[in-house]
Amino acid sequence: MEEKKLETCFSPALYETEGHKESIVVIIDILRASSAICTAFANGAASIIPVATIEEARNYKSKGYLVAAERDGFVLDFADFGNSPFNFSKEKVNGKTIVYSTTNGTGIISLASSAYMTVIGSFLNLGALIQWLIKQDRDVLLFCAGWKNRFNIEDSVCAGAIAEALMKSSCFRTICDSTKAAMDLWSLASPDLLYYIEKAAQRTRLRDKKLDDCIEFCLTPDFTDKIPLMHNGVLIANA
Amino acid sequence: MEEKKLETCFSPALYETEGHKESIVVIIDILRASSAICTAFANGAASIIPVATIEEARNYKSKGYLVAAERDGFVLDFADFGNSPFNFSKEKVNGKTIVYSTTNGTGIISLASSAYMTVIGSFLNLGALIQWLIKQDRDVLLFCAGWKNRFNIEDSVCAGAIAEALMKSSCFRTICDSTKAAMDLWSLASPDLLYYIEKAAQRTRLRDKKLDDCIEFCLTPDFTDKIPLMHNGVLIANA
Repeated sequence: MEEKKLETCFSPALYETEGHKESIVVIIDILRASSAICTAFANGAASIIPVATIEEARNYKSKGYLVAAERDGFVLDFADFGNSPFNFSKEKVNGKTIVYSTTNGTGIISLASSAYMTVIGSFLNLGALIQWLIKQDRDVLLFCAGWKNRFNIEDSVCAGAIAEALMKSSCFRTICDSTKAAMDLWSLASPDLLYYIEKAAQRTRLRDKKLDDCIEFCLTPDFTDKIPLMHNGVLIANA
Repeated sequence: MEEKKLETCFSPALYETEGHKESIVVIIDILRASSAICTAFANGAASIIPVATIEEARNYKSKGYLVAAERDGFVLDFADFGNSPFNFSKEKVNGKTIVYSTTNGTGIISLASSAYMTVIGSFLNLGALIQWLIKQDRDVLLFCAGWKNRFNIEDSVCAGAIAEALMKSSCFRTICDSTKAAMDLWSLASPDLLYYIEKAAQRTRLRDKKLDDCIEFCLTPDFTDKIPLMHNGVLIANA
């Protein structure tokens, strides 16, 4: 197999639609959307319908769907719950379809919809995702959700963790400065990830809102081997 | 003096005009525009007129100006020279006004024109710039030119070098993930900067075009104490 191209994008504002039509795009939004989505599938969710706007989420709720919806960390009043991974428990989500709308995470999914395939990555499915990406005969873009179009540390570090493993596999090549920087940040973060993430602005935001009980969980590698894949606008888990 | 805010922007595509109207914006385009501009002032240039388009540069040439103009590293046919710092020698630039247009560097200057003040930063004027920024009673944005709107390593690492010194001065505070990541990249790069920059895509591009003779020079700290400042659309050196 020819070496595949590996790239990293640090923000939705830097996404180049044209360059990735034949690539697998891995969406990374560690605190907290991609961690929550991976948790939902680990706990048996049947599917997740990501929606970008509050109105869409509200419409689904009126049709009887289970709805997870937040803005800036806070649960919207009509929603069943927000985007803490702890909300997506087996009791709540097993066998269910969930409609999901978040500040950053779902907008970026729509942006990546022109790619060959979109999948959700996090520390929670790190090892399985890496092995799966190595097996696919496709270029890969690691797409960090960031925060309101800005670079963020936690998504970049996770991109670095994935990139390091993909580059070690010898199945990938990269000439992308963002990928190399992400790998370097991961090299600094990996000895004590929980401590490193203390410097992230989102870490502080979640603490200030008392929404930070899930941080350690979100940084846990290999909690699940499920890889959420986008299929016709709906996320399902790989077989 | 109250602590000043320090932020970093990794790409023109991430620049938020509204947030920086009262700030000093430091433009960083290490390979090679900001290094060339600092060299020009070190060698006695009177002023530099940055222009964004090839047409503007050509018009100035027809009026008899000394014109430096390149695209993707190559000198434009009508120009006197391109943007290798070695072109801006004392013999050529002492006492002169230079019209200057480059792939990245001059577009970003125009983008930052709504800021309180725009200055040019590079390794070449690192120490003087840091001391000058500490003395100003203004927030600071380190604005990396990147490459065609992408993140790049060499500008980010220079931003990290400036940020580290500003934060050590205790005159600044930051909650900006980009600043913290830049400082971390600088911590990895600083023990052997020339070696670290080997991984930068622009390093490879310049080597492929045989334009890389100036790399080591561009990474030299404190070659000059001149700080190029934008004043009414023209760059002049600080007193």
